Amino acid sequence: MTSPQVSADRLLARLDAFAAIGATPGGGVNRQALTRRDREARAFLTALSKARGFSVFQDDMANLFIRMEGRDPSLPPLLIGSHLDSQPAGGRFDGALGTLTAFEVLESLADAGVVPQRPVEVVVWTNEEGCRFAPGCMGSRAFVEGSIPDGWEALRAVDDGALFDDERLATIAALAPDVGHRALGCPVAAYLELHIEQGPSLEREEIPVGIVTGVQGTRWLEVLFEGQTAHAGTTALQYRRDPLKALTAALAELYATIMPENAEARFTVGRIAVTPGSVNAIPATAGCSIDLRHPQADVLDRLEARIRKRLAEAAEAEVVTVAISKTVDMAPVTFADDVVSALQIAAQKGGFRTRAMISGAFHDALFLAGHAPSAMIFVPCRDGLSHNEAEFVRPEDSIAGARMFLTSVLELLSRL
Amino acid sequence: MTSPQVSADRLLARLDAFAAIGATPGGGVNRQALTRRDREARAFLTALSKARGFSVFQDDMANLFIRMEGRDPSLPPLLIGSHLDSQPAGGRFDGALGTLTAFEVLESLADAGVVPQRPVEVVVWTNEEGCRFAPGCMGSRAFVEGSIPDGWEALRAVDDGALFDDERLATIAALAPDVGHRALGCPVAAYLELHIEQGPSLEREEIPVGIVTGVQGTRWLEVLFEGQTAHAGTTALQYRRDPLKALTAALAELYATIMPENAEARFTVGRIAVTPGSVNAIPATAGCSIDLRHPQADVLDRLEARIRKRLAEAAEAEVVTVAISKTVDMAPVTFADDVVSALQIAAQKGGFRTRAMISGAFHDALFLAGHAPSAMIFVPCRDGLSHNEAEFVRPEDSIAGARMFLTSVLELLSRL
Repeated sequence: MTSPQVSADRLLARLDAFAAIGATPGGGVNRQALTRRDREARAFLTALSKARGFSVFQDDMANLFIRMEGRDPSLPPLLIGSHLDSQPAGGRFDGALGTLTAFEVLESLADAGVVPQRPVEVVVWTNEEGCRFAPGCMGSRAFVEGSIPDGWEALRAVDDGALFDDERLATIAALAPDVGHRALGCPVAAYLELHIEQGPSLEREEIPVGIVTGVQGTRWLEVLFEGQTAHAGTTALQYRRDPLKALTAALAELYATIMPENAEARFTVGRIAVTPGSVNAIPATAGCSIDLRHPQADVLDRLEARIRKRLAEAAEAEVVTVAISKTVDMAPVTFADDVVSALQIAAQKGGFRTRAMISGAFHDALFLAGHAPSAMIFVPCRDGLSHNEAEFVRPEDSIAGARMFLTSVLELLSRL
Repeated sequence: MTSPQVSADRLLARLDAFAAIGATPGGGVNRQALTRRDREARAFLTALSKARGFSVFQDDMANLFIRMEGRDPSLPPLLIGSHLDSQPAGGRFDGALGTLTAFEVLESLADAGVVPQRPVEVVVWTNEEGCRFAPGCMGSRAFVEGSIPDGWEALRAVDDGALFDDERLATIAALAPDVGHRALGCPVAAYLELHIEQGPSLEREEIPVGIVTGVQGTRWLEVLFEGQTAHAGTTALQYRRDPLKALTAALAELYATIMPENAEARFTVGRIAVTPGSVNAIPATAGCSIDLRHPQADVLDRLEARIRKRLAEAAEAEVVTVAISKTVDMAPVTFADDVVSALQIAAQKGGFRTRAMISGAFHDALFLAGHAPSAMIFVPCRDGLSHNEAEFVRPEDSIAGARMFLTSVLELLSRL
């Protein structure tokens, strides 16, 4: 047995090979969940796994598990992985880098003849992206839940028929034939996931590795002001009930205060619309979406209350009404101290420059943290771009991330 | 010869009869310019005119003229009228009330045996609305120009083929067969037009008649901020270049200052949009329309400069760019003192309560004012609603307006 080493060439070749499955003309990937291309990627990884002598399992949500047996098969495994599905015009690294890094670590251990005390498993979560079926992180949610949540049975694919229908089990089983079946929600010793940052911090600060200590909480609000449409030219100020005036007044103040006063807050308006949408008509309605994030639940509560108050005040000032509905409410997660400190020790041992950071995006690890001690490692991506065909991670950053990941896995195995 | 009197019953019956041509299920009218319904209305009015012994003419823009001969046929006529075309989901009164009031006045004069010194003509202007072919007020613009402006030849109807093609003259002639042809831009002694206010002032102040002393100038700006899209959750404030933040900051200040500080100004944002329009993506672009009106050209200049300055400052503050294009620039018009004072005298003689006012909307009279001394009379409409199937004028207000119009015509004839 030698000291396990990441094979840079193998990892980079694997990234290229998987990027070819669903490759888009623009250099990205279209490998949406449970499409033919997604199945092809799963089948490819299954074949690679079997060739290495790893056993492969699938659960009722089509989450895929690749198992390196431990000296004590009865111990819960150390679980490592990510996802293989992509956005419709997605990049080559979002999900795939974490999945293939985890598989590279498994192969590195096998290459070195390491047989850990407990099993190590690579997991490929189903439908992380949520663009073809909502919600996202469907596989990890159901895994943690231990069953498929009510309501998902009715989900339909855009171009591929039902996800769950009367032949659900047959459909799911067909995704990866000749693999073992496993129940949802098996015990896990710890979960570790590598992912691209999907933001600009690491690149701009020239730090190769982020140790992720938690995931922000996220709330989505849909806001709709209703006033009264009227002629732009003939309606004096005192006769106007302009919903867009109310909306812009509120947004201008929220933009000017929420993020400037709370460095960790994220306040984004990604959609805005008015009706009837005529140049010379005062709008009848004006609406927008609000995406609000913060690592602390109590701060989120305060910020949401402030947003609601400001919107209500703006409505009152313009004699219009406002309706606010909350469409997403995901609590923040703080990752397990034990796992985070193992990562910090691994970084010291391996000589990796790191920074601690909070994830701004959702990840499967957010849900796994409800099931087992979990954490994440981030690597920089160019310009923070993701969900974009131009998404790019430098080869040296992929390799550094994989080495940090291997060191972390060894550290965790020594502690668990 | 007796003193001429408006026939209330006849006027109200005519309003009903014309409202039936292109009537919509919602109680409004769809009689867009040069459609079959518009032709039907023109043909009906032509038949009524011929039955009364009035002669009928049409020019190359299909403007229709109904002539009561004067004692001296060589004198330029007093021209009175409006339009018969409507918005796609328009009301029964916009245009039709002014046209049928003018025709009622002509019939009242004929009923009473009045033969004025100079001819009186009712005019029906082509395509005032501009919704089927742009620009609006096409008939009155070409009339004042004396020819069809360059570029209109290429205009196309949405559902009716070419407006102007190789067979243009034949097409136009077919609109009203068996009527005389007349050149564009014949001399006019004065022009008077009655119209619904299309705003709430008269109704709320309970004043039955508005004497319109001018028309606001109007400028339309298209504004487009460009920044950079990025992930809502992962992008900290210092890395954001958010075009919607810039746009809402500028709009909030412009809303808060332009109309509150300038009672005669009108500032309206009727359209707003962002791309890509995803809840969890900072927008790449944010754009809006601006409709700016004021009765004075120098004030419009100052307000436009202020808007441009504020937009540029907002762009700079958010490190985004802004492009501004001016798509409409119509100078304000002050109506002729002689005509306005004749209306004021007529109101005194007839005992009508009036107020002087500026028109916030465009009208054919805005263009006619460049050709002959002109003015307008407004009547109240419910809730200021227009361009809407629910548009409504109380019968007593229609009748009061027609009486004021008749008195005004007699006053003008005595002065010209």
